[in-house]
Amino acid sequence: MSQPGYVLPIGGAEERTLDSPVLRRFFDICGGEGCRIAIIPTASQLPETGPAYQQLFTDMGADEPKSLPFATRADAEQNEEWIDVLRRAHGVFLTGGNQLRLSTILGGTMAARVLRDRQREGLHVAGTSAGAAILSAHMIAYGKEGSTPRGEAVALAPGIGVLDKVIVDQHFRQRDRLGRLLTAVAMNPRYLGLGVDENTAAVIDPHGVVEVVGEGSLTIVDGRDVTYTSAHEVVRNEPLTLLNVRLHVLGRGARYDLEARVAAFGSEHPPSN
Amino acid sequence: MSQPGYVLPIGGAEERTLDSPVLRRFFDICGGEGCRIAIIPTASQLPETGPAYQQLFTDMGADEPKSLPFATRADAEQNEEWIDVLRRAHGVFLTGGNQLRLSTILGGTMAARVLRDRQREGLHVAGTSAGAAILSAHMIAYGKEGSTPRGEAVALAPGIGVLDKVIVDQHFRQRDRLGRLLTAVAMNPRYLGLGVDENTAAVIDPHGVVEVVGEGSLTIVDGRDVTYTSAHEVVRNEPLTLLNVRLHVLGRGARYDLEARVAAFGSEHPPSN
Repeated sequence: MSQPGYVLPIGGAEERTLDSPVLRRFFDICGGEGCRIAIIPTASQLPETGPAYQQLFTDMGADEPKSLPFATRADAEQNEEWIDVLRRAHGVFLTGGNQLRLSTILGGTMAARVLRDRQREGLHVAGTSAGAAILSAHMIAYGKEGSTPRGEAVALAPGIGVLDKVIVDQHFRQRDRLGRLLTAVAMNPRYLGLGVDENTAAVIDPHGVVEVVGEGSLTIVDGRDVTYTSAHEVVRNEPLTLLNVRLHVLGRGARYDLEARVAAFGSEHPPSN
Repeated sequence: MSQPGYVLPIGGAEERTLDSPVLRRFFDICGGEGCRIAIIPTASQLPETGPAYQQLFTDMGADEPKSLPFATRADAEQNEEWIDVLRRAHGVFLTGGNQLRLSTILGGTMAARVLRDRQREGLHVAGTSAGAAILSAHMIAYGKEGSTPRGEAVALAPGIGVLDKVIVDQHFRQRDRLGRLLTAVAMNPRYLGLGVDENTAAVIDPHGVVEVVGEGSLTIVDGRDVTYTSAHEVVRNEPLTLLNVRLHVLGRGARYDLEARVAAFGSEHPPSN
């Protein structure tokens, strides 16, 4: 049995240089020099987005990285040449933009199936901003700012589901999104919220252990022990009650085990249960 | 043995009308019609602050409420007439302004001792904004905005200590202060953080059970189970690691037991341990 690939939700606004800790880590995970990277710039409507990442990964030493600008559902279902690039890649990078473009264009297509299935067999998948949001099975489509949860503060939509138990949010500290992530977890406390700051990646290894890379921190919202939430009855914009959430803020050196739901710091490895 | 009075940290910007749910609740707790209320406007440098509350409590039906504008440490130590008003009051209301004015002018004086000692014997104490901050033994003097904790995001100073186990923060959601409250709790996880939204009061009864009154919510940060924090070594403005915090967001109908550290909703009463 092959093991799954790494998954790297990135909080957006990552440094785009050869020395970028976040992009360099993804490049190294994909195998470094000579690795094959595919770029999906579909979230962005700027024609330069895909080529810019293509150039950067070329400069790092990737083997002819390819931008695949899926723009229609027909592309994502039938463009055999592009889908073949996805099949042969070591890593796929999803750019930022609008996550609803990703879900509406890729959702349920061959491209999305290949991405999800191949990740389970070893393909490494990174996404920044909208490209991070889409990784969730239950994706945050949009929402409101602020540190505390409110009625209707967040709208979910189905994502690609590379991460099936985690709801990712990005630009996390910079756009004060803890309230909307708490609101998302309140709607079904079995899910884990993962907030990723800008220029920061949650590096999730094949065993589900998360490490922090980059400038900021990761915020984990664990709803497993929630005893009560008013999410079923709270009115739009009114304060939402949410009791007994477990919260972790992970800076560099901290890790989190998504399966065991345990945080640890330093050389101690999180118990695998 | 007499029992302690109620304590009402208010998040600032409370409605100042006869129908204000927050001020009306304080007035009722003090005994309603004919009760004696003293106002300490020391945090404010606006001469109209004290008289404005005096007028409002008069209109509600209090018995000649008195504003006591302590402006120097000598006032707070020796003004027997004013200190006598504190001794005979059913309730004391501390206005907003700058909490460091309260701590520097009242700290360690007779007025502060009377306030603290009489609260234990049944005096009800409310404070809004700066007047809420000063109630803590470890008071947030100032700090930075943002939802996640950072190195040196908060500065503490000794408060009056009516609430000896709780660090109060105010204007909580409106000024995105969860990060600084988490930073404060990280510095010594035995303390409980209590964030109070604007136009909202944490009504703490003599048994230490907290109820939400007003427009917003209360945020409780419980550090008791924290397994690791990098607060001892994190650099200024860098992300601070804080693992295993328990978080509660209390809307209307929710309660929290400060002694048992248990949250509950609705008719169920929190276990008193």
